[in-house]
Amino acid sequence: MTPSGYSFIAGSQVSGTAGTLTPRAGASGETLEPEHGLVSVEQVEQAARAAAEAFGAYRATSPEQRAALLEAMAATLEADGDDIVASAVAESGLPQARVTGELGRTTGQLRLFARVVRQGDHRGVRLDPALPDRTPLPRPDLRLQMVPLGPVAVFGASNFPLAFSVAGGDTASALAAGCPVVVKGHEAHPGTGELVARALTSAVADSGLPGGVFSYILGGIEAGQALVASPHITAVGFTGSRRGGLALVATAASRPVPIPVYAEMSAVNPVVVLPGALGDPAALATAYVGSLTQGSGQFCTNPGLLFLPTGEAGDAFVEAAAAAVAQASGQTMLTEGIASAYEKGAAGLRDTAGVEVLAQGSAGGAGAPAPQLLQVGTDAVDDAWDAVTEEVFGSSGVIVRYADTAALARRLARIDGQLTATLHLDADDDTDVEAARELLPVLEDRVGRILVGGWPTGVEVCDAMVHGGPYPATSDSRTTSVGSLAIERFQRPVCYQNLPAALMPQALADDNPWGLTRRIDGTLHLAPSQGVTHR
Amino acid sequence: MTPSGYSFIAGSQVSGTAGTLTPRAGASGETLEPEHGLVSVEQVEQAARAAAEAFGAYRATSPEQRAALLEAMAATLEADGDDIVASAVAESGLPQARVTGELGRTTGQLRLFARVVRQGDHRGVRLDPALPDRTPLPRPDLRLQMVPLGPVAVFGASNFPLAFSVAGGDTASALAAGCPVVVKGHEAHPGTGELVARALTSAVADSGLPGGVFSYILGGIEAGQALVASPHITAVGFTGSRRGGLALVATAASRPVPIPVYAEMSAVNPVVVLPGALGDPAALATAYVGSLTQGSGQFCTNPGLLFLPTGEAGDAFVEAAAAAVAQASGQTMLTEGIASAYEKGAAGLRDTAGVEVLAQGSAGGAGAPAPQLLQVGTDAVDDAWDAVTEEVFGSSGVIVRYADTAALARRLARIDGQLTATLHLDADDDTDVEAARELLPVLEDRVGRILVGGWPTGVEVCDAMVHGGPYPATSDSRTTSVGSLAIERFQRPVCYQNLPAALMPQALADDNPWGLTRRIDGTLHLAPSQGVTHR
Repeated sequence: MTPSGYSFIAGSQVSGTAGTLTPRAGASGETLEPEHGLVSVEQVEQAARAAAEAFGAYRATSPEQRAALLEAMAATLEADGDDIVASAVAESGLPQARVTGELGRTTGQLRLFARVVRQGDHRGVRLDPALPDRTPLPRPDLRLQMVPLGPVAVFGASNFPLAFSVAGGDTASALAAGCPVVVKGHEAHPGTGELVARALTSAVADSGLPGGVFSYILGGIEAGQALVASPHITAVGFTGSRRGGLALVATAASRPVPIPVYAEMSAVNPVVVLPGALGDPAALATAYVGSLTQGSGQFCTNPGLLFLPTGEAGDAFVEAAAAAVAQASGQTMLTEGIASAYEKGAAGLRDTAGVEVLAQGSAGGAGAPAPQLLQVGTDAVDDAWDAVTEEVFGSSGVIVRYADTAALARRLARIDGQLTATLHLDADDDTDVEAARELLPVLEDRVGRILVGGWPTGVEVCDAMVHGGPYPATSDSRTTSVGSLAIERFQRPVCYQNLPAALMPQALADDNPWGLTRRIDGTLHLAPSQGVTHR
Repeated sequence: MTPSGYSFIAGSQVSGTAGTLTPRAGASGETLEPEHGLVSVEQVEQAARAAAEAFGAYRATSPEQRAALLEAMAATLEADGDDIVASAVAESGLPQARVTGELGRTTGQLRLFARVVRQGDHRGVRLDPALPDRTPLPRPDLRLQMVPLGPVAVFGASNFPLAFSVAGGDTASALAAGCPVVVKGHEAHPGTGELVARALTSAVADSGLPGGVFSYILGGIEAGQALVASPHITAVGFTGSRRGGLALVATAASRPVPIPVYAEMSAVNPVVVLPGALGDPAALATAYVGSLTQGSGQFCTNPGLLFLPTGEAGDAFVEAAAAAVAQASGQTMLTEGIASAYEKGAAGLRDTAGVEVLAQGSAGGAGAPAPQLLQVGTDAVDDAWDAVTEEVFGSSGVIVRYADTAALARRLARIDGQLTATLHLDADDDTDVEAARELLPVLEDRVGRILVGGWPTGVEVCDAMVHGGPYPATSDSRTTSVGSLAIERFQRPVCYQNLPAALMPQALADDNPWGLTRRIDGTLHLAPSQGVTHR
């Protein structure tokens, strides 16, 4: 199966009527077949309305029905996997092995949410039984469950054409919560988006649910803004640039009824090397450059800023890191726009007062600009702070030298919100541990994920993951866009007072037909079917 | 103890330097002693900075320390209870029994959150242990906990001078989450605010925690805006008018770092009477008027809009309700501003085309305007819709007649977001139950709490309560401002990857020293100390 240039609205293949888009092979500039239609604002509204019309039926699905849909989506993606991977490789310029792995991550995410839905803890059921004899006033019967918000608009990322795109984490978590989804396809991978949307559309059709549960529309900025402005849309998931995210936040806030926007935007992901971690400076430096240059640095979690002690061991790290970057070659970036933004941002950093160029690698051809490594000394860092803490998307690393950890803690306390922070230390070194103890609450306040050792590029999809963080890493620090907690973004609580049994929602019924964990009179009660043990 | 006109910043009694405020006895206009100082913008910033400085120590408190502080606050409020109640009665014009009950509700809320903190489920702990042998990539050790956002600004309501004010639900839930609190005192009850703040300040001092954990500043609109704009503030809780709430939302959104605002604003709390509920129309009508006129209708959950069947039984309800309102007398409202806004809004409703005046009660003296009851027929409701769905704060009720429930469902599907909706029905009447089944998902989508029978005025403080709802009932439908779930407003998730034991936060440590419920590898594990049973 190859792309044909279509969008999918509520189960039907449609041709966009507002112009066309020619796909390109990554940043190399080569054009691909076929032309894709771009949807009109009217078509956007059609998709949003269909989602609203499907909401009633979809919210009423049982955990089993909803989980089965997510699993069917994973299966259809796997059935079309070869074609999907081929299209994503052609459009993104990413290596086949990487894209194949990403497909597995995407289907794994859908199945993770199927498990979450079946388990049902996300419904947050709370029961406070009636106390008819309480004085001075009796207590009514009160029951609470989380309900889905309504249709969700999803904006995929260019850098993960599968796992953060049409069938990515935002789509999976919104569908799991009971929300129909309208995906605005990314112009960097229209063919991939179409093939994935076709697979998801067929899974919805097979489920017997209304087609409006899932729509995919390929469009430009105007279409995206129209989608967020549609009165039928109740929340937005976005992964991309800060400018793009903030534009959607502004649109959502200025609606007659404002809606939440979960935008994952930008970060420099500070890495702090404590002195004890420099036992083998060259090995650590090589590992750092591996993370910095992996996939041309096109990760939200790329380690763009590293704090390194002054002194000989730090100098040795710098020397080895510079040598590694000098030997590194650029890989084709995702789009021409991303490649040229990298080149502009990288040059701006090199021209910043106080910034020293340690090394530049080689370009890997058209659209594959050279990686670079820069350094800022202790005396220049204040003036260069704003420049070095702003993300340059790509393989551009800045090493900031520091002389004492107390000053470092004060500096980190005022860094912009970040997705991650990483500490390298010797856990047997009391000085390192003491410094880390001082830094930990500072970082906790500034980031969504704290690593000790390792590198932030690599985001596990699981229950304990947080891919989020304070503004401007995201527009809403209270959640995550990766992992099972992401489902909570698309829910709100409703309380039911004194409902008769005939009207009681299934999740709240006395006989607990769905076998849910429930908080009863303040205490958690686990359904035996959960197979939960004490520990 | 009587009020002296002070604010409290970080443990110190201070005199506001930006003018003075003369307290008044409710809406009667009588002035009270003493004059109160209003804080300057500099004093606002001083309080916010002290909160930020106290955050490090306060967030590090154990569950026991934090719970003990909340309980100590409840105890100091009780010790000063007679003076606090006397001041609130004088300033609000509310009856003593009501205010005494509200003090009990306030201390009860603090103790509820002490229980929540000790139990610790709000920390949402999730552990995904390392899988070093997993292929193709090992899984690191990942642990998640919810952490406090940071200093919270609280804006109390005029209509609950205790339970929704200085020591109210927003303050209790923010402190429980680990957030220092700065309360902007309400100008309608400055003396009460001061006495409550004095009690809370003394509890903080006795705890040995930094004074910045709690500050109370009495100020005007400019001070409130400055508080929300302060870079030290990370979230806002507000109960009050839509205009006031939206002004704070706008300020929060336009900060360099936007912050969440939880504003509980306005509602008309629709009541739907289904035909089967009209077995004794006069009794139901009397109960309705009791809820409508209770406390001069000064409740967020006042039932301002009632849908009633056309026909004889409905006519009998109207007749009885009109008679009850005609005999009702206004009680002194909270402030002159509220009384005059009621009079203006009530007159506007009476003058709306298609609105029929059924009854007006009598005024209860200065600042105690008369209750009123209005009716809109089936033919006029479309034109009058905007007017009758806008809150008039006070005892003004509108009865909308309807002829069939399908049309009613379509109408309710486009009502503004509401705090509550109430259904009156006969649970043994199949037609009623069928109609309710049709209405339930519509209401679920529009409100935070659905009642069957009874009246919405009366908000239980418990685990299953939702006092919230879609915009414009609140600025953020994803939460509640009453009940234990409110704590989640002031938290965000952080993930810890591969932390050594020496750096592990207590809540996440292997030996579970706080005895928390934890989700391990996807499955909930209950600490035996929780005493949880299966059911």
